[in-house]
Amino acid sequence: MRVLFTCIILFASACMAHSQNEKNLAEKLGFDRNAKMLIIHADDMGLSQGTNSAVTEAFQKGGITSGSIMVPCPWFPEIAEFAKNNTQYDIGIHLTLTSEWDNYFFGGTSPAASIPNLLNQKGYFYPSVEEFARHANAAEVEKEIRAQIERALAFGIKPTHLDNHMGSILASPDYYQLLLKIGHEYKIPVLIPADMIAAISKPLLDMLSRDNIVINHLFMLNQASPNGKWGEPYMKFIENMQPGLNQIIVHLAKNNDETRAIMVNHPDFGAEWRQNDLDFVLSSEFKEALKKHNIHLVTWRQIGAVQYPEK
Amino acid sequence: MRVLFTCIILFASACMAHSQNEKNLAEKLGFDRNAKMLIIHADDMGLSQGTNSAVTEAFQKGGITSGSIMVPCPWFPEIAEFAKNNTQYDIGIHLTLTSEWDNYFFGGTSPAASIPNLLNQKGYFYPSVEEFARHANAAEVEKEIRAQIERALAFGIKPTHLDNHMGSILASPDYYQLLLKIGHEYKIPVLIPADMIAAISKPLLDMLSRDNIVINHLFMLNQASPNGKWGEPYMKFIENMQPGLNQIIVHLAKNNDETRAIMVNHPDFGAEWRQNDLDFVLSSEFKEALKKHNIHLVTWRQIGAVQYPEK
Repeated sequence: MRVLFTCIILFASACMAHSQNEKNLAEKLGFDRNAKMLIIHADDMGLSQGTNSAVTEAFQKGGITSGSIMVPCPWFPEIAEFAKNNTQYDIGIHLTLTSEWDNYFFGGTSPAASIPNLLNQKGYFYPSVEEFARHANAAEVEKEIRAQIERALAFGIKPTHLDNHMGSILASPDYYQLLLKIGHEYKIPVLIPADMIAAISKPLLDMLSRDNIVINHLFMLNQASPNGKWGEPYMKFIENMQPGLNQIIVHLAKNNDETRAIMVNHPDFGAEWRQNDLDFVLSSEFKEALKKHNIHLVTWRQIGAVQYPEK
Repeated sequence: MRVLFTCIILFASACMAHSQNEKNLAEKLGFDRNAKMLIIHADDMGLSQGTNSAVTEAFQKGGITSGSIMVPCPWFPEIAEFAKNNTQYDIGIHLTLTSEWDNYFFGGTSPAASIPNLLNQKGYFYPSVEEFARHANAAEVEKEIRAQIERALAFGIKPTHLDNHMGSILASPDYYQLLLKIGHEYKIPVLIPADMIAAISKPLLDMLSRDNIVINHLFMLNQASPNGKWGEPYMKFIENMQPGLNQIIVHLAKNNDETRAIMVNHPDFGAEWRQNDLDFVLSSEFKEALKKHNIHLVTWRQIGAVQYPEK
């Protein structure tokens, strides 16, 4: 009995020592243990020409570290060509299962007949996550996710990460598990926003974060700021940033004819919003705040290298 | 013998009398027998937002009489909604079997697996009529034409005519016959440009014009005019216009970010070209010339009413 007890004590201390000595993500990336790391991420690449134009400008001027591409959208080929020819930028796939605009729609990358429950009567994705959730099933979600990844690969993209348009995957823990399974299979990290998922279900977060690097704190605007104060919520997030892995998601586009026509009747995440986001990430105010608060910019490619060192 | 001869003479004069008394198209439309009739037609509706915006403006300001929609293109839903809600405008289907731009592509309206010979490796139509002609076959062309018409109908469009993007249908007389067969079936007139087809094959024109109203003279710019003289070739066509049914085809779009991005590397039929065409059809110079030369504007809906009075 005493022997067994001693063994347990020894084993427990070995575990603790291991856990204290093990490098955390920051250290694995060459920073201090308590470093504040940040990914600045543009969603919706490929949605439109005005999006592609804004995101490529933001990459070239250092306003963002990362972005992800909507494979089913009309301007996918243009941005795929950019991604293929500019592998210095950190570009993933924004898996898309919803189509939310009034005049401009996207359907599946799989043949329509193979995903009937993901498409509305006209052959497009449903406009809301609620409608998607009501109709979808895991087999079709898996088929479409795989089709989007395979199409991105066929166009020469080497995706650094997988994330998801409008959070439709969160409609079911089964879909999230599916996505993680696929991520492991392709050895591509998947966005897991820890604080957002913990708010839905702690056991879900525990399940998702097993074997996966998570984003500790994700920040995204959910309402427009008053005129002239667009950057304030972002600046507050930066000032209060916690150690660990953080991500800011922005929605960039040029506020031009095309963008206004797509986003008609959508003031939230609309044309002005996206131009404001672009102006903000390009501003010196933003860049200076990142320096002042000693924030280390990182990319999904770096996360992938830690998560899949064998790749 | 004499009786037979007399019979022939009598029959021949009866035929001549019938042919002289029969109303020609102009008369059926309420004009003088020798009236100069003109359709001013905008191609490529639905191609892009900048196209939709230009063509709807041209309709609203009376710069064109007619236009036709590319069903497989990204901005089809927006223009379909416009067509459905503005039945006073004369709108047909611009059957599309080619995809000619560098960064912006369209695939089939039919399931890709059912038209493998119309699509390239990436799943889009071939960029040129030559490549289309090399791969296509009549069964798949028929399937795709029917799919585009059915999709237009499903979106609430009541097409007044059928025409064809880049003249791909002219790649084979079989395809043209097919198109006419489908036109008769739906009771929708098909564009038959008589002088253009006669230049290829007189027997083909004879075959096509049996039971169909033809456009006697079609005019379309085939090269850019010098700066400041954009309208000259159009004005020359108007000044020399012949009696019968004439059609001018224009290519309209706003010369904006989106249009320039689509038409990059394509000065011919590019962004400046399309803005010039828009400016021309809206100009008072154009409208005055039409009046001065006593030209009667007509629509495909009027042609359809003559060709299919029972519809």
